[in-house]
Amino acid sequence: MTETDEASPARRSIGATRNPASQDAILAAAEAVLLENGLGGFSIEAVARRARAGKPTIYRWWPSQAALLFDVYHNRKRINFIHPDTGNVRDDLRAYLSGLLQTWREGGSGEVFRSLVAKAQGEPAALAALSAYMAERREQSGRIIEKAQTRGEVRADVAPTLVPELLSSFAWGRLLTERLDVSDAEIDAVVDAVLSGIKP
Amino acid sequence: MTETDEASPARRSIGATRNPASQDAILAAAEAVLLENGLGGFSIEAVARRARAGKPTIYRWWPSQAALLFDVYHNRKRINFIHPDTGNVRDDLRAYLSGLLQTWREGGSGEVFRSLVAKAQGEPAALAALSAYMAERREQSGRIIEKAQTRGEVRADVAPTLVPELLSSFAWGRLLTERLDVSDAEIDAVVDAVLSGIKP
Repeated sequence: MTETDEASPARRSIGATRNPASQDAILAAAEAVLLENGLGGFSIEAVARRARAGKPTIYRWWPSQAALLFDVYHNRKRINFIHPDTGNVRDDLRAYLSGLLQTWREGGSGEVFRSLVAKAQGEPAALAALSAYMAERREQSGRIIEKAQTRGEVRADVAPTLVPELLSSFAWGRLLTERLDVSDAEIDAVVDAVLSGIKP
Repeated sequence: MTETDEASPARRSIGATRNPASQDAILAAAEAVLLENGLGGFSIEAVARRARAGKPTIYRWWPSQAALLFDVYHNRKRINFIHPDTGNVRDDLRAYLSGLLQTWREGGSGEVFRSLVAKAQGEPAALAALSAYMAERREQSGRIIEKAQTRGEVRADVAPTLVPELLSSFAWGRLLTERLDVSDAEIDAVVDAVLSGIKP
């Protein structure tokens, strides 16, 4: 074996099981490559070199370059985007939507995500990575609604993922047309439309 | 002048004013080029050759290749997507959303639109064309809500473009992740969430 991660005991591969140390090292290297080279200059080769890991090790954990990029993107996002749990559904949804928009406005996360969405339109591996990522996000964000349902704030017949999907799709539309500057009043209008409807 | 459209009296340019005959001929040529060559092989040169029009004539009317492609896309879409006016807002919104999803499932319109959205993430001219197109669509679709407001079905303080934006963003999200098969029950759930809210 010539994989450089095999040379360092701290990063020794343990087969198909993810080794957290190596995984973190690769994610950190991938983030550094992304920040230095941009998405156009991003490559698994460059990540492998920087992380002193073998390409097969990286591909064992991430099926595609896009899958690795989604993990890097989400890792960076988590810094700003704590999952809201305020105790009431209106504030949770406002925090969710404004957190998403704010994250995309700051620090290049929005640029990375919109590039990945664009990439997914032409590359099956990128689409698979986007789909897997979004399925995970919907499940995670759906907990806002599930908790609201146990508190009796949302009807039991509402699919938990529906509302986060409506809000995140709204945010996608804004990101992909460069209209991320959404006022607090607009955020409230979107959340209140979905929560309370638009009837008189 | 060597522009071929100048040679034919029927397609003579009349300066900055759009000549409907030439415009239709160019749109028809552009659609034919798109269907034959796909988006990757689409070029203003090929459209000019086919329409026997000059490239400057085309650029006088459409500021970019993307702007022309949005017109072609919308022209094709109109065949399936008649603007709904059923007399009640729930049926209008259901027809609007299901019409959009159906149009995207059929005849390559969805493939064209998602490619244009992807293109807009890297090309300022394509983003400008997408933004102009969406602003026009929001205004047009906002009339569903304006009419509902005059009928007293929707509160007067609701921004008319908000609801079509929520529904079309939902459809974008589905298109861009290849989940366009939305059941009638799901369409109703989306429309009813926005119309009536999700509270008990």
